[in-house]
Amino acid sequence: MLMDFMTRLAGGISRMIPPAGRLLNKFLINRLVNSARHRPHPWSTVHDYVSWTSLTDKKWSARHLPVRRDMAPAKIGNMEEFFRRDEQRLSPKSTLLFPAFAQYLTDGFIRTLMPSDGEPDDPSRKQNTSNHEIDLSPLYGRTPAQTSALRLNSHDSGNKGKLKSQQIDGQEYAEFLFEGDQIKPEFEILDRPLMIKNFLDDPYRLSVIFAFGGDRANASPQITMMNTLFLREHNRLAAIIEAANTDWDDEHVFEVARNVNIVLFVKLVVEEYINHITPFAPAIKFVADPAVAWNASWNKPNWITSEFSLLYRWHSLMPDNINWDGNDYPVFESIMNNNPLIDGGLEKAFVDMSAQPAGEIGAFNTSASILSFELKAIEQGRICELASYSDYREYVSLSRPRSFSDVSSNPKVVEFLENAYESVDDIEFYIGLFAEDLLNRSPLPELLLTMVAVDAFSQALTNPLLSEHVWKEETFTPAGWQTINETKSLRDILQRNVVGGISEDTFIGMTQPNWP
Amino acid sequence: MLMDFMTRLAGGISRMIPPAGRLLNKFLINRLVNSARHRPHPWSTVHDYVSWTSLTDKKWSARHLPVRRDMAPAKIGNMEEFFRRDEQRLSPKSTLLFPAFAQYLTDGFIRTLMPSDGEPDDPSRKQNTSNHEIDLSPLYGRTPAQTSALRLNSHDSGNKGKLKSQQIDGQEYAEFLFEGDQIKPEFEILDRPLMIKNFLDDPYRLSVIFAFGGDRANASPQITMMNTLFLREHNRLAAIIEAANTDWDDEHVFEVARNVNIVLFVKLVVEEYINHITPFAPAIKFVADPAVAWNASWNKPNWITSEFSLLYRWHSLMPDNINWDGNDYPVFESIMNNNPLIDGGLEKAFVDMSAQPAGEIGAFNTSASILSFELKAIEQGRICELASYSDYREYVSLSRPRSFSDVSSNPKVVEFLENAYESVDDIEFYIGLFAEDLLNRSPLPELLLTMVAVDAFSQALTNPLLSEHVWKEETFTPAGWQTINETKSLRDILQRNVVGGISEDTFIGMTQPNWP
Repeated sequence: MLMDFMTRLAGGISRMIPPAGRLLNKFLINRLVNSARHRPHPWSTVHDYVSWTSLTDKKWSARHLPVRRDMAPAKIGNMEEFFRRDEQRLSPKSTLLFPAFAQYLTDGFIRTLMPSDGEPDDPSRKQNTSNHEIDLSPLYGRTPAQTSALRLNSHDSGNKGKLKSQQIDGQEYAEFLFEGDQIKPEFEILDRPLMIKNFLDDPYRLSVIFAFGGDRANASPQITMMNTLFLREHNRLAAIIEAANTDWDDEHVFEVARNVNIVLFVKLVVEEYINHITPFAPAIKFVADPAVAWNASWNKPNWITSEFSLLYRWHSLMPDNINWDGNDYPVFESIMNNNPLIDGGLEKAFVDMSAQPAGEIGAFNTSASILSFELKAIEQGRICELASYSDYREYVSLSRPRSFSDVSSNPKVVEFLENAYESVDDIEFYIGLFAEDLLNRSPLPELLLTMVAVDAFSQALTNPLLSEHVWKEETFTPAGWQTINETKSLRDILQRNVVGGISEDTFIGMTQPNWP
Repeated sequence: MLMDFMTRLAGGISRMIPPAGRLLNKFLINRLVNSARHRPHPWSTVHDYVSWTSLTDKKWSARHLPVRRDMAPAKIGNMEEFFRRDEQRLSPKSTLLFPAFAQYLTDGFIRTLMPSDGEPDDPSRKQNTSNHEIDLSPLYGRTPAQTSALRLNSHDSGNKGKLKSQQIDGQEYAEFLFEGDQIKPEFEILDRPLMIKNFLDDPYRLSVIFAFGGDRANASPQITMMNTLFLREHNRLAAIIEAANTDWDDEHVFEVARNVNIVLFVKLVVEEYINHITPFAPAIKFVADPAVAWNASWNKPNWITSEFSLLYRWHSLMPDNINWDGNDYPVFESIMNNNPLIDGGLEKAFVDMSAQPAGEIGAFNTSASILSFELKAIEQGRICELASYSDYREYVSLSRPRSFSDVSSNPKVVEFLENAYESVDDIEFYIGLFAEDLLNRSPLPELLLTMVAVDAFSQALTNPLLSEHVWKEETFTPAGWQTINETKSLRDILQRNVVGGISEDTFIGMTQPNWP
């Protein structure tokens, strides 16, 4: 309903003119965020009642809705079949740069603790290792000690404030994590790359795993690509900031370069990423105006929810094969494999990801090789005893479906749901999210988009670097401030971080160039 | 100016009538909190510029104003002489219950890390161990592991949800911390009582040190008295809550009893403590209305500031001697000494503290035995490179003094300041705070009261238990909710936690009974 309203509004507007645009931007963001309850959330995964622990201990994930136990269980066991791809469907709107950005973004702060022993009811899935901020932790690490291990810590002129890096084929990358099959001692403090134990006797992969801040940042060459871009941007910013402030020490240069880099990333989250997933562009494009949040009643401390950690699992965005520099790689071959990136270089990687369509989000479209992740997601929803799909629709002010056919117009989806559930009210959250039809002009269905938008705006615009008394030129230096103001896209950042820049007709973007 | 305005307003009002009272309460609280910049603060003690660390790493104390280095240093070395008591001045308004509550409150969340090696420029004074919430950590500990060590963890009917305790002379107290001269193994996880190493061969003191959550909670019998009250209240609440919910487990009873106990404490902070320190009662009495904060733009995450940790050092409130149950104890004899409390019992302790006037806050009124604390406070202000006293007046919208005589009407104070500083603009924050005259009808001077009020309201009313979607009966159970609504004072809590209750004509209060 809200999305309908906004889509109609978008249709009536040809382009936004400040300050009317600024007010409209604020109005629309508030409308979206106000479709759900504001933080603090009363509950977390620790207790099924309100407790001081549920209100303060952020290692437990928050929850939008309380535990619900009275739904009839699914009637069939192999629920992951709901996701198994039959015929690959591709998105008419999104390129592969979209899932690359989405995964990089969410890996930074949706950090569900993985089961340590594989027990299906391992309580660790209720916990997280998040800082609950968009802080580029895949680049900088989660903790001050990790950040320190990643820094060059140099007092030499020209190297102050930089992150460790190496040159490969004349291009800048992070240092490698391993020396032979051992992690280099200086990087012992970093979180181990997830799944690394599957590849310890695979020197082809192991030798090119990078020393990154995030344990998921080597998960695929697309993620490595994103992290490498922000690594280069950090070091580029550090050089500029040092040159303009020659009396600053290493720490000061580092901190201010990080200030700028994080804000660049937050800006892209709103102005490139959210504008891609909402259906309103080009008529309405959201802008990352920090003032929107300053006096907003929804400006409350971030806390990643259990629901948020599930709704962001967009496995169907992955096609069966991805082309890197002329070679097709099946998805499972690109897992933990940085070679395709290094072979073609950063620019080619961005070009390639921008030239291929992403898969389409929805049922029956997850590549077989990653289908097991869907099963884990379904399990996690059950471990966390989430409320039903219908409850969540109601929670974000959407209509409650009365029949299975209210959920989807796809007969195959409806048939699956009918076989799987006693009634429409029993549909599980994770299944319902992906059962819905896509919204017109969006790569996402309605409930998913609404919940993403609520949390994206209320978590991005509340970043402390955007807060009222911080958001000023002196926090970033004049050069940093100018960089922030001039940056609107990943393309802008890539342009200044590849040797010789990129040519004018090279397309880099999340939205396919022929999208109307 | 603001205080003048509000005092005049208070003079024109005989009593508050809801809902006018409720609106006025909201208006006045907003006026007070809006006299300073809202959080997030740009700076902390970690850097003298804005950094991601300064914005997120709460082990460093936040700061209201940035580092200032251009003030002329004090001309004399023995600045602590500014505080040395000549003739003891007593407060016409406050009883000793006031400093007991103030210290107990602030010990819970102003937790400056003490120097480990005594070096004057130890950076630990820039750090803290605070949870940055009013969470009764002196009772419950700072961490889940500490809380667990303090709990009875019993599944027996009638004992669920309780804290460990013992009976002494038919009264309930916490367990003792030591067995001989060794800390009991079960309490190893607790923070060591501060200064305990001075008393390790003093069995008179050591044998009655309690196993408390806070390392400062045994610091004096007054603090032990406060913590014992809330220990009894917790166990009383647990029994009531268990009786009404016999199917609940130990954890559930514990958590809900804690929910109620913390809210009781927050309520007293506003309704008993703040109403004592502001000059407006009885005409205007603030009420702890949670709704005031729900949509307030100042409702931002708490973060204890370096300034806050200094301005709360009210050593002159301590008279030279305190009478416990008929015996006079010089201040230094009551340090870390719980015997006076145990000898007389809890009720007598509250009666005694309510029957004696506190010292008067201000210059030349600190007992010699605790004068060294003043020196440490002055040092800490210098280590943290705080801005000047005048800067802070301006910061909270007060006039900037132009001469020494603008600061105080006391010629002795003015003379000291003239000898100590080049100009009025060089007066250090900590000195200036206590150089001012007391406000009419308040135990505090103007800058101090303003800064305390800003932080008290903006930190107490933003407690997550008071937040919009938590503040409801089901968070506390009907019995807990009723207890919250019926509790207005420490007296109310004491009444239900001493055998047989207290008689109607027994006075318990922070404001002397004959205060007009």
